[in-house]
Amino acid sequence: MFKILKTEGKARRGEFSCAHGGTVQTPVFMNVGTQAAIKGGVSALDLKNVGCQIELSNTYHLHLRPGDKVVRQMGGLHKFMNWDGPILTDSGGFQVFSLASLRKIKEEGVTFASHIDGHRIFMGPEESMQIQSNLGSDIAMAFDECVENPARYEYAKASVERTLRWLQRCKVEHDRLNSLPDTVNPHQMLFGINQGATFADLRAWHMQEIAKIDCDGYAIGGLAVGEPAEIMYEMIDVVEPFAPKEKPRYLMGVGTPSNIIEAVARGVDFFDCVMPSRNGRHGKLFTWEGNVNIMNEKYITDDRPISESCSCPVCRSHSRAYLRHLFKADEVLALRLAVLHNLWFYNELMAKIREALDNGTFADFREKYSGNLEKRA
Amino acid sequence: MFKILKTEGKARRGEFSCAHGGTVQTPVFMNVGTQAAIKGGVSALDLKNVGCQIELSNTYHLHLRPGDKVVRQMGGLHKFMNWDGPILTDSGGFQVFSLASLRKIKEEGVTFASHIDGHRIFMGPEESMQIQSNLGSDIAMAFDECVENPARYEYAKASVERTLRWLQRCKVEHDRLNSLPDTVNPHQMLFGINQGATFADLRAWHMQEIAKIDCDGYAIGGLAVGEPAEIMYEMIDVVEPFAPKEKPRYLMGVGTPSNIIEAVARGVDFFDCVMPSRNGRHGKLFTWEGNVNIMNEKYITDDRPISESCSCPVCRSHSRAYLRHLFKADEVLALRLAVLHNLWFYNELMAKIREALDNGTFADFREKYSGNLEKRA
Ligand SMILES: [Zn+2]
Ligand SMILES: [Zn+2]
Repeated sequence: MFKILKTEGKARRGEFSCAHGGTVQTPVFMNVGTQAAIKGGVSALDLKNVGCQIELSNTYHLHLRPGDKVVRQMGGLHKFMNWDGPILTDSGGFQVFSLASLRKIKEEGVTFASHIDGHRIFMGPEESMQIQSNLGSDIAMAFDECVENPARYEYAKASVERTLRWLQRCKVEHDRLNSLPDTVNPHQMLFGINQGATFADLRAWHMQEIAKIDCDGYAIGGLAVGEPAEIMYEMIDVVEPFAPKEKPRYLMGVGTPSNIIEAVARGVDFFDCVMPSRNGRHGKLFTWEGNVNIMNEKYITDDRPISESCSCPVCRSHSRAYLRHLFKADEVLALRLAVLHNLWFYNELMAKIREALDNGTFADFREKYSGNLEKRA
Repeated sequence: MFKILKTEGKARRGEFSCAHGGTVQTPVFMNVGTQAAIKGGVSALDLKNVGCQIELSNTYHLHLRPGDKVVRQMGGLHKFMNWDGPILTDSGGFQVFSLASLRKIKEEGVTFASHIDGHRIFMGPEESMQIQSNLGSDIAMAFDECVENPARYEYAKASVERTLRWLQRCKVEHDRLNSLPDTVNPHQMLFGINQGATFADLRAWHMQEIAKIDCDGYAIGGLAVGEPAEIMYEMIDVVEPFAPKEKPRYLMGVGTPSNIIEAVARGVDFFDCVMPSRNGRHGKLFTWEGNVNIMNEKYITDDRPISESCSCPVCRSHSRAYLRHLFKADEVLALRLAVLHNLWFYNELMAKIREALDNGTFADFREKYSGNLEKRA
């Protein structure tokens, strides 16, 4: 269930609810726990302490390890990882096309080699739905082909046509799985994914077509894969008019704080990105004052928190000097603290975006922060 | 301050207090945070949640990184790592003799090469005291030579004689540093260290000599470095009669749960060991039912906690199947959860030893558990 509470321009302030957890306030950033754990030593319990509303896990990874059938046997992903809030699982498509090797794409689906041990795996729309059904996530993503940018027009055209046919198959299989008596989460939702590389006409056509299939939400995929941000914004502008107003929109794998602010301004509700945890693990910290590279020599005896305007569990307890020391000394604790702070920042960023929308001041917020949060503190 | 509340045979139930934190109940296991962080992504705040009473950090490591002068500038180790309980720092001696290379030992002290970047460092009794004074720990350890086992008798004899002279110099320097107006912790205590390899006469002579120097406690060093446990127990039996009754005794770097039970039975009060965190990081978990190797195939869908008799934060929330998955998937969270459980187990082991001493049932406890806790669960 998705309800729009307020709008400002194209930006939407909403509420979303699903089988697990309370009501999710949107716009929302989903915190990435690829293998049913957040990289950097952060558990599902820790997510509660950094303001996470939705956890995102990866179908491809969990299918390989520990296996979706193991997760199903353990009662589904919620029980397995001890997270009772909403979970979104991606379809595996993106990883099949970015991580796996020896891919062969046919109408039925994709045969590929596991990046772990090389064994051959087949995944098509039905398999992706079956795996996600076994995981029991709240939101399943349709199986799509994520075309590399830049793409040839003819290839991209054939690909989105196939991705549309795959969505039709996903929908049929998803409905069938949800109706089974022993399904893990019979209330699992399905989001369709818009593709089309950076070709405006393909993007628009594809969004119009997938909008005809009754999905619970619509994602924009295949962006933030190397193209300039302006192209990404242009593609959002192209598809937004055709995305059903009453359904949530999810911009996959995006992005920097400014990317998120700009996409909210263009009507996007859901986000996810590995940036806060990946950057954190390299000592790059997000703050309202700009980016902090905690490895910097100047922090060696700096007893202030990462950010004096941050009230995260890390900033409440630890100094820049201590965190810098942990990184320099190769202590795993450095990763954990940095990731906790960055996730808190991203979740707080969304809270402030929502607050601005509630107050009708999102335009001012955008003016103040867009393009500024990536500068050096 | 150390007070013995009760004894059973040679085993002692005591209370210890120092400048930081409340009263420490002994026998106690000190939780090792080598570089001002516990390996496996565990912070000082986490230590509170696993029942840690005393944290132990390493002088050698902190001297190299971030530098004891940095720690002093940050207000001492307690503030730096955000731990307000007691801290013991070792003297650096053990690491100089085990980690560093190109050592040259003279009467003044030891010149060695840093294991990080190879730069030449000199450390003698005065330097060790100065570094530990800068760290501001509650208990400083005397600078000693830890002789490799097996050692030649003549070498070990010359070494303990020098270690005695070094203790005399440590005591003078320690008193001087504590009396300085700007010292970080003017109430810092000093423990002497007994050496003598596995030669009973050297061990006994050395303990008698160091007992003449007014230290706040006495440690037995240079054991658990490869010799059979029986030899270690024999050495404790040899020196115990000469260790001042009214002062705490600390068996350095020991050991397995059974080693600890046996040493308590021989009159030891303080312990430390990297075993719970190191074994944890390799998936080897301690339980009252014996050792669990969580990597084992049989745990793949085991929804029980690591131990059904454990009430640690990990066992309250996570299954064996999940923890096994985290190890197999190389998630850093695996290390954290395993270390938290193992530290909880060690701290609980000590609590149960104390409870048995309180109840006058330590002999039964020893009979039941000594030699049994290392079996496979
Ligand atoms: Zn923070
Ligand atoms: Zn436990």
